[in-house]
Amino acid sequence: MLPEKITSLQNPRIKQLVKLRERRERDDAGLFLIEGYREVRRALEKNIRIGELYFCPEWFLGENEPALIEQAIQAGAQLYELSKEAFAKCAYRDRPDGLLAVAPQWKLGLGEVALSAQPFVLVVESIEKPGNLGTILRSADAAGVDAVIVCDAVTDVFNPNVVRSSTGVLFSVPIVLADSATVHAWLREKSIRIVATTPDAQLLYSQADLRGPLSIVMGSEQYGLSEFWLKESNALVRIPMAGQADSLNVAMATIITLFEAVRQRNG
Amino acid sequence: MLPEKITSLQNPRIKQLVKLRERRERDDAGLFLIEGYREVRRALEKNIRIGELYFCPEWFLGENEPALIEQAIQAGAQLYELSKEAFAKCAYRDRPDGLLAVAPQWKLGLGEVALSAQPFVLVVESIEKPGNLGTILRSADAAGVDAVIVCDAVTDVFNPNVVRSSTGVLFSVPIVLADSATVHAWLREKSIRIVATTPDAQLLYSQADLRGPLSIVMGSEQYGLSEFWLKESNALVRIPMAGQADSLNVAMATIITLFEAVRQRNG
Repeated sequence: MLPEKITSLQNPRIKQLVKLRERRERDDAGLFLIEGYREVRRALEKNIRIGELYFCPEWFLGENEPALIEQAIQAGAQLYELSKEAFAKCAYRDRPDGLLAVAPQWKLGLGEVALSAQPFVLVVESIEKPGNLGTILRSADAAGVDAVIVCDAVTDVFNPNVVRSSTGVLFSVPIVLADSATVHAWLREKSIRIVATTPDAQLLYSQADLRGPLSIVMGSEQYGLSEFWLKESNALVRIPMAGQADSLNVAMATIITLFEAVRQRNG
Repeated sequence: MLPEKITSLQNPRIKQLVKLRERRERDDAGLFLIEGYREVRRALEKNIRIGELYFCPEWFLGENEPALIEQAIQAGAQLYELSKEAFAKCAYRDRPDGLLAVAPQWKLGLGEVALSAQPFVLVVESIEKPGNLGTILRSADAAGVDAVIVCDAVTDVFNPNVVRSSTGVLFSVPIVLADSATVHAWLREKSIRIVATTPDAQLLYSQADLRGPLSIVMGSEQYGLSEFWLKESNALVRIPMAGQADSLNVAMATIITLFEAVRQRNG
């Protein structure tokens, strides 16, 4: 069966794709965009249920796109071929590569997190920049956490820039959205120690015991840790800094802290 | 004395500013661009000799710009006021903030590096992405290295995106450009141990001794470490990875390795 061809920029599907760049539209529709060959491939690898796949051969960069499209069809995706101009209008990227998918968002509850024998969880508070959130997800994946818990989310995890900067980790690392009080109660209930980072702490992050059931809490870019977590954590730690005060951003600080925990836990 | 006003998009200074976005033009002229309030402020703080400062009040975002301009004049900068349109043409950023400086490039030789009692040096090979190089410079600053040595540079350190993503660290961390063979000979001569990271190493980065005179060598994004450094290093180490293979990029791996060295050296 040949895919439907869309050339009109006024086509309602084109309009919907453009709208899905906006958080409100994504949340209302319960959908999000997956743009790009690598991202679509990873989504399929991780069994993300792609509802619609839009493609435009004139934008393809390689030769593997038809095989990937075939794979998406097998997995149940509806296929739409776009004209070059129509694809350019929908594409989020400056240099599109001719593939754009729409998939349903998902929600994971705290109760659904599969904790390992020695729970290891990353909690991030109100991260603002999609690029930072994506990098944080990648570092959490590399460190092997059980889950990333996003408290009081400012940036939507289904933002196209998170999808992209997470290099597909969004599709595999368990991510829970919740408010701080609920997360705190859950951590206590599970007897998971709470170690939070703040530049004002006395203790160095590497002097804290990061073995056993552990959650690491990171504050937002602009405001750092909230009063709530400053008060409700078991330990506050800081990363020693040479050089200028803002050389480490929250994503870099997260990487450093997570991998110190990995080091201690493997040792 | 009132600054010269430029409104014509054909003005040769406007054309030169646009040209300086290109590496060849920068290298030929021995100049580079510093765009943005924060960047210009940091350049002045670090005594970068700004030759020309272009400004456009219609693009200013705050109220501190006149004081900064005054500071630049005191430091010897020539001042040019641009029309809104002319500034938009010169600006590299999508949302300019009305300040754009031109400063001379500098070159630091290996012989000019001020090594500390326990030398600590970062060597990066052929990094391609300006954003990665900027993040690497920030992490090197935060870790307090004596110098960053860029071997066989692919990305120009004076690229506007390096200036920006380094958040001014470019102006303070000593950076040397050299070829790998020269750097290797210099490290040997100074009795500085060479520890290089590669995913194929047996030894974990945290099991290596990173105290004493140390250089950490990181490979490029696409190709990793070259044969040269694989062969000529004292130790090869790897970072343990859970999750998908490419979750850690070179900038993230650099942060992890540098801060493990800091931990060991402070402990």
